[in-house]
Amino acid sequence: MQTIDLAVAAKKASIELAALSTEKKNEALARIADALIEHTSEIIAANQKDLERSAEENLAAPLLKRLKFDEGKIKDVVAGIKSLILLPEPIGETLSATELDNGLELYKVSCPIGVIGVIFESRPDALVQISSLCLKSGNATLLKGGREALETNRALAKVIREASEACGVPTGWIQLLETRENVNEMLKLDKYIDLIIPRGSNSFVQYIMNNSNIAVMGHADGICHTYIDKDADVEMAVKVATDSKTQYVSVCNATETMLIHKDIAPDVLPKLAKSLEERNVEIHGCEKTQQIISCLPAESWKMEWLDYKVSIRVVDSLEDAIEHINTYSSRHTEAIITKNAQAAEKFMNLVDSADVFWNCSTRFADGFRYGLGAEVGISTNKIHARGPVGLEGLTIYKWKLKGNGQIVADYVSGKSSFTHKKIDKKFSI
Amino acid sequence: MQTIDLAVAAKKASIELAALSTEKKNEALARIADALIEHTSEIIAANQKDLERSAEENLAAPLLKRLKFDEGKIKDVVAGIKSLILLPEPIGETLSATELDNGLELYKVSCPIGVIGVIFESRPDALVQISSLCLKSGNATLLKGGREALETNRALAKVIREASEACGVPTGWIQLLETRENVNEMLKLDKYIDLIIPRGSNSFVQYIMNNSNIAVMGHADGICHTYIDKDADVEMAVKVATDSKTQYVSVCNATETMLIHKDIAPDVLPKLAKSLEERNVEIHGCEKTQQIISCLPAESWKMEWLDYKVSIRVVDSLEDAIEHINTYSSRHTEAIITKNAQAAEKFMNLVDSADVFWNCSTRFADGFRYGLGAEVGISTNKIHARGPVGLEGLTIYKWKLKGNGQIVADYVSGKSSFTHKKIDKKFSI
Repeated sequence: MQTIDLAVAAKKASIELAALSTEKKNEALARIADALIEHTSEIIAANQKDLERSAEENLAAPLLKRLKFDEGKIKDVVAGIKSLILLPEPIGETLSATELDNGLELYKVSCPIGVIGVIFESRPDALVQISSLCLKSGNATLLKGGREALETNRALAKVIREASEACGVPTGWIQLLETRENVNEMLKLDKYIDLIIPRGSNSFVQYIMNNSNIAVMGHADGICHTYIDKDADVEMAVKVATDSKTQYVSVCNATETMLIHKDIAPDVLPKLAKSLEERNVEIHGCEKTQQIISCLPAESWKMEWLDYKVSIRVVDSLEDAIEHINTYSSRHTEAIITKNAQAAEKFMNLVDSADVFWNCSTRFADGFRYGLGAEVGISTNKIHARGPVGLEGLTIYKWKLKGNGQIVADYVSGKSSFTHKKIDKKFSI
Repeated sequence: MQTIDLAVAAKKASIELAALSTEKKNEALARIADALIEHTSEIIAANQKDLERSAEENLAAPLLKRLKFDEGKIKDVVAGIKSLILLPEPIGETLSATELDNGLELYKVSCPIGVIGVIFESRPDALVQISSLCLKSGNATLLKGGREALETNRALAKVIREASEACGVPTGWIQLLETRENVNEMLKLDKYIDLIIPRGSNSFVQYIMNNSNIAVMGHADGICHTYIDKDADVEMAVKVATDSKTQYVSVCNATETMLIHKDIAPDVLPKLAKSLEERNVEIHGCEKTQQIISCLPAESWKMEWLDYKVSIRVVDSLEDAIEHINTYSSRHTEAIITKNAQAAEKFMNLVDSADVFWNCSTRFADGFRYGLGAEVGISTNKIHARGPVGLEGLTIYKWKLKGNGQIVADYVSGKSSFTHKKIDKKFSI
């Protein structure tokens, strides 16, 4: 099938899927969970092929580990689906209700976005998570996973498709794309696809944005900062900054640059350097940093290290820290460590990033940790959804207006007039 | 100044503007309202130049009328600003609050989008409305009005800039662009501009979308439908359909195509045709329509007439009407006329448009009529904001996380665990 045929089928399915009841969707999710367990051996066999081929192609060990999909991983994704079933229904919720006039009632009601194209890395659990989030939120989806996971993704998509369609989810709601060519074709299908969520490298996300008219939700970088204010508790600062940098270095919410207020730098920097060096972190400092501790020179404030490396800069003031962040940050996550509430307030108000933290690790910026259930990605967009994106980010709304024959001419002539009264009512027919 | 300098200045202003208090913003709006009255004669003199030049250039009479900005129009925009002052503060609202763990609290707090580029038609009141909506919602703005209104826009922007900056709104928050070249440059400035709202012709909006990486909120078409179901009240159907088509023909929420159920067509069509023809509406019907009434043949179902013309199609069923709409509509506004609640429910669930109406005119799809205060435009996007966009569509949110030294390592090791408890609390420091 051509990519356009897959997109047309998904669009068609999306219309009915938008009106599917909570019971039907949850039943389908439960059925998918069971089917994944029932088909464990097929899925593992498919994954084995991917692992063997990738090993032959000398895929790096950490990537091979991400690619591996065993019984334990299947149990994990099934547990994820089961907790998704328990989350509240995101669709059909009345977000506001207004009486425009007697007998003329306006409701803003949540609904699915429609058809969502998701491009994700070679981690088979991503396919299950994304497709189940889409189903729960009533969206049809075109999925393109990493090439390395081809066989596993085929097996998973087949199980999910058959299990869901067998209990009434409209045929065509889940479509698997397999080639880069498919992706390039998808980018042109703005008539059928409402949103693209690319997960992957910075350059890849930029490529998608540059080559499509479809709305793109994603993050292009994760240059996160931890700022240690002059009024920080030094012990807390060292502990939180170290966690922010080293708890998991290859992820987008790891701190890449630390900013230290000049008044506290002589005290905090040696302790921080010791803590970081114990964890084999290579420090790239500004000139002032180099005067206090021994380290390499910093050459750029735009480094997304994703490694045991960090940039450190000594700043003259809170304002300079905010200005540095608003200049060099990727608008993802930034933290301030301080005992001074006014400084924290200013930082959280003036830093223009999706997540702004006070006295805790940047690594908390994550859908699971936020209690969103699961995340489809992290957004550094400034519209629609920001930060970790869960079910709610996959919804939008419709305006539903119920009348009994009202016409606008009567309101223009003055025969009728608007009451515009907020009402506490859920939409119903 | 270069466009980039204007955008950099707006970006810089946007940071402080985001944290401006409600009192300051409302004071500035009140000051702007007063200043517009004080400078009435300057504004009218500037408008006079625009009117004279445009008359010499043979601008069409209805456009000259839209361009005219007299004392009455100034009073109208001032009244608009005064009602905007009374609207609730859209920024700093706690949208949700979750305790992640004892002493670790997550808040989702509304904030401005940042810098918004708005391109609008030659209607000077649009400049006042858009800039005051941006100010109330804490956004900096780059404004490009129609060429015909150049002198009026200069005068208005000067009054608004001086009045607002004199009472503490950060310098640079409002910037006026004057040429098409400025617009083309603006489209490249995704580093400084967060959202573009183009108002204007279909081809113009498409041009913007095709030539920028910046998010675009707008509508490309207004092909709205009114469907007369077999269970419609015929008198109501004729009245509402006539209003939908003729109350104001040149606007995007006017009905362009009417769909009539075959069972009711023989009864309703002659009455509808009579009502439309009394208002000089030219009917373009499908073959079945032509068998019942005398009319021109319909040649396309994608006509946005914006005129005293309408397309009419007889359909076999509610499902066919829904399918027609989901195929040919621009996803703006569609109405069903029926006494049958189940039919209405199905229509409102399955029609994939921003506004879905039951037994009332499509002309109600409007920010003022919806009680949103004012609108910055109408969106047929599927993300962020849909339908009439008021203050709320100019906001997004930040995640603010308050802790006391929490690190992620403790939650990964199992030493700490998440409570994820919804809390009924507003964010405060």
